[in-house]
Amino acid sequence: MLARIDINCDLGESFGVYTLGRDPEVMDYISSANIACGWHAGDAMVMEQTVRLAKEKGIAVGAHPGYPDLMGFGRRRMELTPREIENYLLYQMGALFAFARAHGLSLQHVKPHGALSNEAFVDLEISKTIARAAARFSEEIILVTLAGTVMVQAAKEVGLPFVEEGYADRVYNPDGTLRSRKSPGSVIDDPEKAAAQALTMVQEGYVTAYDGTKVKVRPGTLCVHGDTPHALPILQRIKEALRKASIAVKPMGQ
Amino acid sequence: MLARIDINCDLGESFGVYTLGRDPEVMDYISSANIACGWHAGDAMVMEQTVRLAKEKGIAVGAHPGYPDLMGFGRRRMELTPREIENYLLYQMGALFAFARAHGLSLQHVKPHGALSNEAFVDLEISKTIARAAARFSEEIILVTLAGTVMVQAAKEVGLPFVEEGYADRVYNPDGTLRSRKSPGSVIDDPEKAAAQALTMVQEGYVTAYDGTKVKVRPGTLCVHGDTPHALPILQRIKEALRKASIAVKPMGQ
Amino acid sequence: MLARIDINCDLGESFGVYTLGRDPEVMDYISSANIACGWHAGDAMVMEQTVRLAKEKGIAVGAHPGYPDLMGFGRRRMELTPREIENYLLYQMGALFAFARAHGLSLQHVKPHGALSNEAFVDLEISKTIARAAARFSEEIILVTLAGTVMVQAAKEVGLPFVEEGYADRVYNPDGTLRSRKSPGSVIDDPEKAAAQALTMVQEGYVTAYDGTKVKVRPGTLCVHGDTPHALPILQRIKEALRKASIAVKPMGQ
Amino acid sequence: MLARIDINCDLGESFGVYTLGRDPEVMDYISSANIACGWHAGDAMVMEQTVRLAKEKGIAVGAHPGYPDLMGFGRRRMELTPREIENYLLYQMGALFAFARAHGLSLQHVKPHGALSNEAFVDLEISKTIARAAARFSEEIILVTLAGTVMVQAAKEVGLPFVEEGYADRVYNPDGTLRSRKSPGSVIDDPEKAAAQALTMVQEGYVTAYDGTKVKVRPGTLCVHGDTPHALPILQRIKEALRKASIAVKPMGQ
Repeated sequence: MLARIDINCDLGESFGVYTLGRDPEVMDYISSANIACGWHAGDAMVMEQTVRLAKEKGIAVGAHPGYPDLMGFGRRRMELTPREIENYLLYQMGALFAFARAHGLSLQHVKPHGALSNEAFVDLEISKTIARAAARFSEEIILVTLAGTVMVQAAKEVGLPFVEEGYADRVYNPDGTLRSRKSPGSVIDDPEKAAAQALTMVQEGYVTAYDGTKVKVRPGTLCVHGDTPHALPILQRIKEALRKASIAVKPMGQ
Repeated sequence: MLARIDINCDLGESFGVYTLGRDPEVMDYISSANIACGWHAGDAMVMEQTVRLAKEKGIAVGAHPGYPDLMGFGRRRMELTPREIENYLLYQMGALFAFARAHGLSLQHVKPHGALSNEAFVDLEISKTIARAAARFSEEIILVTLAGTVMVQAAKEVGLPFVEEGYADRVYNPDGTLRSRKSPGSVIDDPEKAAAQALTMVQEGYVTAYDGTKVKVRPGTLCVHGDTPHALPILQRIKEALRKASIAVKPMGQ
Repeated sequence: MLARIDINCDLGESFGVYTLGRDPEVMDYISSANIACGWHAGDAMVMEQTVRLAKEKGIAVGAHPGYPDLMGFGRRRMELTPREIENYLLYQMGALFAFARAHGLSLQHVKPHGALSNEAFVDLEISKTIARAAARFSEEIILVTLAGTVMVQAAKEVGLPFVEEGYADRVYNPDGTLRSRKSPGSVIDDPEKAAAQALTMVQEGYVTAYDGTKVKVRPGTLCVHGDTPHALPILQRIKEALRKASIAVKPMGQ
Repeated sequence: MLARIDINCDLGESFGVYTLGRDPEVMDYISSANIACGWHAGDAMVMEQTVRLAKEKGIAVGAHPGYPDLMGFGRRRMELTPREIENYLLYQMGALFAFARAHGLSLQHVKPHGALSNEAFVDLEISKTIARAAARFSEEIILVTLAGTVMVQAAKEVGLPFVEEGYADRVYNPDGTLRSRKSPGSVIDDPEKAAAQALTMVQEGYVTAYDGTKVKVRPGTLCVHGDTPHALPILQRIKEALRKASIAVKPMGQ
């Protein structure tokens, strides 16, 4: 059993006058913030505010880069070359880094967003491209990899630090990938179920896929979505369950 | 007389399939590249290529941030708050920094672009906002300031390193600002004239404004535009004139 | 006394995953929709949905074009040339027209948004540029003009149909322009006050400015903001007050 | 043998300060202009200028809509839903329509651009979505379809007027699609070869694919690319060959 775990959440997804998520409240329950970098969501003002808030709350910050598709929130697949992916990630990591540096923080991690992330789960070459981009930015930055996917292999091959991730509020496929958001019931909104899934992953090292398969998952970080109506009760319940199990919530990079 | 001078040029202003300027050739004559950061011009691919090329040619790189106005090339005034300016500059400096870091370089300097730059020449508060943004990114980054303008005062007040700049290929107003591009003849396209203006600034410490006024200007860096048809002959002629006067061309940060 | 009045509201201001306003509910109380055209807000999906909904509810549609500044919601002044303004408006009117046509509707009106609108209130040349752009698109389209401003004069000079507008939920300056949103209390959130201001304008032909001045305003259309927390109660109260006064709410173009 | 043929070319692909193609010269040789609508290329200023120039030269105008990907020039595949494609096309057709209307022209045709076009060549559902979007805008607008592809079937099923297109300067696959630009030699830059391919298509009704297969193609319009270095000599040579063969060059919609 781990005595500690990280909880990460996608934050800073507002844009201009548009508010998304409940960042300040969510930050009370997590240890790592994946911050949008202005391409699929977020803008320079939002990034600054999010980094500042993370610092105040003692949360580690990481880059959450996505496709150049604000209109589609980075959720639509785009056919990019490896060099495009690499440079797009460098750009976004650097942009976020500026706000981290302005607040005396460093970038703890990088975690790809949306459609890019879905590609990375199943395509080793894309995962390696992502890992290489991260390594070019910093050899100490942690790549957040979906546990059991080729992302883990990519990080190993590139020689980049990585932390495996488990999703508390998403239903799994038997192969360890996430069930598509398009499938009904693929997002878990019952706090009890999410907390149970989280605890089983952390303590037992597996997750039960939608068809009953037990998938081996031993995460170093738990992901919870911050933009759902149930985000706060889910986070509260997970944190309580972890506390009762004497598992501390700490940034993955500490 | 200075035994050395820097020559800077705006580069990396291409975007996607669109090519602007003759960066590889221009780089043979300059010592510092002001690289567009994707908001008024440039994109992640162009930035990477420009930084790579600069490294190959031994040229120092700096950020050339502008307004979020690709359609207007950052040349149209926008009414932004100081916090917007500050965060927009941080974002762009960080984005370029990522490519510099990926190539083992650091950001030598920052120089605002277009309408933002024109504002900075005459508005102390905007100049100080720019200087503060630069200082938040790095206390060692050099702010390129138009000689004799409030930008110099801003850098001093904020405590940021700065280098005063003189334009070789632009006509001056008697107050030391640049004559508007809208005025006919405001851009010097005769290589002899540009080289003479450059040498007079560097050796004599003044420039002759359009009305004959001698304006005191003792630049640490000379700016030449790279996107005009006469950019190369102008650069060749300036470099030759400097060589004959035994003035070395070196990056401002060395 | 008028036996009828139009009520217009800015709608279709959502973008991608971001929702703004409560369009379906607001549409139950109004007769004309000013629909964002994708530059300061809105996108093609939102525009289609908004036009469809307007048709279902029997509401007339008009274009609500703004500056090319999604990040700033079109609220930041940009220095554009008259030709830029003219072409930017044509582009946006045309884009919205496509959705109107696809649903068998025509564009009833055009009303500039945000900073462009604020410019139009006080700058005759900009107002005339807007009127000319509208006239180039269609000589039958109605320009919504803030009552008592140079916009009215511009529409007359250009020979474009226009309807004067009064704001139910904004405080006025003595010169008939709107008090800046930056001034505290410039937005009226008390439904009683908004309804009283609306009724006084429609029945008595004046509005009381913040300093007590009675400003002559006899609107053909009332504007109410749809994105404030009090939008619905204000609209309900206005509609009730108009009904009691036997004033029908009808699209301005009927 | 046809006594007449249309020649179409992609135009208006400049953006802001960036110039692409030699529109004014190209227009001397063609009869139909496919004008970019601001999403993958073009902007409101460029669109206005291009429509104005087309009118002066007596050329018919059509919409050339593409993916929302200026950075990639609309050449990168994006996974869009049918409703997204439909609304994106409506938006762009409408935007161009405004400039046509301002100049007293109508939209003669619509022709998808880049990656969207490549999808349409091989995917009936996408072709039908495009045809439906065009039909929703106008039942008289002509869909330009690559001869021999499912686009033709789509136009027939939707009941939209269409004109089959042959490429003078692109190498064909045996199935009638275009050989990928990534294959060396897929773009024909020899004016003689391009003119011969054009004439054979128009007079004989076939084109020879890269492997020698004779593919049946009897176009109503010939496409020539305007942004290649050989565009003008190719156009000159084609026009000369057509003239000698007594084939008139006329807009497809006449």
